[in-house]
Amino acid sequence: MLKSKVTISDVAKAAGVSSSAVSYALNDKPGVSAATRDKVLKVADKMGWKPNSAAKALSNASTQSIGLVLTYDTHVLSVETYTMELIAGLTAELEAEGYSLLVRSSHSQQSEMDVLKEWIATGAVDGVLLMNIELGDPRVELFAEHPEMPVLLLCDSTMAGGLASLADDEQGAAHLLVDYCHELGHQRIARIAGPERYGHTFIRDNAFMEETAELDVQYSCFHTNYSPAEGQRCTERLLSLSKPPTAIIYDNDVMALAAVKAANAMGVSVPDRLSIISWDDSFLCSVSAPSITALSRDVVTHGKRAARMLLDLIDGKQVDSYTEEASELVFRESSGPLVG
Amino acid sequence: MLKSKVTISDVAKAAGVSSSAVSYALNDKPGVSAATRDKVLKVADKMGWKPNSAAKALSNASTQSIGLVLTYDTHVLSVETYTMELIAGLTAELEAEGYSLLVRSSHSQQSEMDVLKEWIATGAVDGVLLMNIELGDPRVELFAEHPEMPVLLLCDSTMAGGLASLADDEQGAAHLLVDYCHELGHQRIARIAGPERYGHTFIRDNAFMEETAELDVQYSCFHTNYSPAEGQRCTERLLSLSKPPTAIIYDNDVMALAAVKAANAMGVSVPDRLSIISWDDSFLCSVSAPSITALSRDVVTHGKRAARMLLDLIDGKQVDSYTEEASELVFRESSGPLVG
Repeated sequence: MLKSKVTISDVAKAAGVSSSAVSYALNDKPGVSAATRDKVLKVADKMGWKPNSAAKALSNASTQSIGLVLTYDTHVLSVETYTMELIAGLTAELEAEGYSLLVRSSHSQQSEMDVLKEWIATGAVDGVLLMNIELGDPRVELFAEHPEMPVLLLCDSTMAGGLASLADDEQGAAHLLVDYCHELGHQRIARIAGPERYGHTFIRDNAFMEETAELDVQYSCFHTNYSPAEGQRCTERLLSLSKPPTAIIYDNDVMALAAVKAANAMGVSVPDRLSIISWDDSFLCSVSAPSITALSRDVVTHGKRAARMLLDLIDGKQVDSYTEEASELVFRESSGPLVG
Repeated sequence: MLKSKVTISDVAKAAGVSSSAVSYALNDKPGVSAATRDKVLKVADKMGWKPNSAAKALSNASTQSIGLVLTYDTHVLSVETYTMELIAGLTAELEAEGYSLLVRSSHSQQSEMDVLKEWIATGAVDGVLLMNIELGDPRVELFAEHPEMPVLLLCDSTMAGGLASLADDEQGAAHLLVDYCHELGHQRIARIAGPERYGHTFIRDNAFMEETAELDVQYSCFHTNYSPAEGQRCTERLLSLSKPPTAIIYDNDVMALAAVKAANAMGVSVPDRLSIISWDDSFLCSVSAPSITALSRDVVTHGKRAARMLLDLIDGKQVDSYTEEASELVFRESSGPLVG
């Protein structure tokens, strides 16, 4: 078996189109116009292009796996429950189809891009799941240019660049949280958020600003790397103000737990002088003392749904972007009206 | 390219040896005697056997991934920090070599075996990591029969059937825990353990029984599925005894956290009337109120070491089984002498 001496790149140059267009045309896949397809096939035939059958077999072969790159800091990754719950849901749903989850760690956005490009080029996975979509995320553009690789984005559809997406209702959740604090009588509320560059943080930030302005409630916000250490630091900073907030919302569970500890250490009674609310509910929130009021979203089910949507995309089915139902608040001991 | 009409299975039958032996002989790999190799080559040649080159290329090709099957219950998986810390360590170390972690979920031991056999047959991964090794584990036998697939077992070397293994010093840790409780003056100690079938549970059970007998301390033990719910249930059961234990050791962090909650609810003061100690240290233990005394082992580093050992095995290097240094106790608020 000889490798064809004429490459796709050669055909692309001769036909004056992109390599992707040549690939789609030669593999009889959608993504190019009928005219381009005809042109490519003629040029390729004239140049004596022959498919490399082993490569073709490989690239068309199902790998029975979907890819996920984890770009978190190793330390944060190991304490946050969200990612493990997501993986648990993903792999549980994939199991029924004999699929695996291919997990790659990356220490930077650039190295994640390199991995994704490699997956697209080699067909090492049948589909890709993208999480923590950022504003102007280069991954969105990359996959928009490679419709041959099924992809599902865990983000709001407004940030998905037309690609399939699965989102939580961040805006509805933000309103729920602000309204709850307002009804309890809190006039100064704060939020310890995740990284500012994330799309879901952006949406939460906007929704908080608008809803607090609407209700004439003071609002301040710090952005963190989601780590308990930053949760603690920001809590201490807020509680040291001359007019500290009386309710703080944390964008994940481990920061809320760290906050309970920090408030205790500073002698600030929870919930009498400070209400603490976690954006994510988890086992941690229910066993904390005091237990922590939390916005409940079922991440395991979210992971299962993501896997199902991605499997449907791989099967060539039409998949509409989806937003989970608004989350619910689970009322526990860490929140209430001011006392005294 | 035609597929060879004579299969390895045909050659095996004709030569009166196993398919594995034929595979080793034809691929010039160790695992068969020189005599068997000669016999196989002669029979194969006589039968007109030809290697399927695409299949050969595939099976010899590096997949740049190592496989891990998660057989935990989805719910336990999503609350326990151990697995996420292990995955964080594994993927961080693999990243430097451009390797990925292929994660497959399985709901039963049988389905895990099916996945492992498939990986061995197809070469879908370059190596496999096995965790939660059980007594008489069929996976050990499977990989002993397939030396062509590099494997690392996370278990005591006495249970690894001669395969490479990486272990924690369970025995040293058990002695440390019992001695600590004994020095505090506790005469009735209990342990809420993981599943009885796990090899590491077996070693811990033995070590606890021997050390408590040695020190003439009363000891009782319940086995659980590691879930917080069972941690709570067993704690309530122990504390309802007419002579309850005054120190309880939990085989993971989430059960210890659930125990703090259960003790609080029953009005049992921690640590004045009950010391609570977690076998695993984690962020949870430090933010709990009271914070939980815990045996500290660095799971992220353990995961990195496991990845490095497996990569060395894949590279054909000699890898000796290794036992981590004895863990250390991190003293926190949940343990102390009896008061009053």
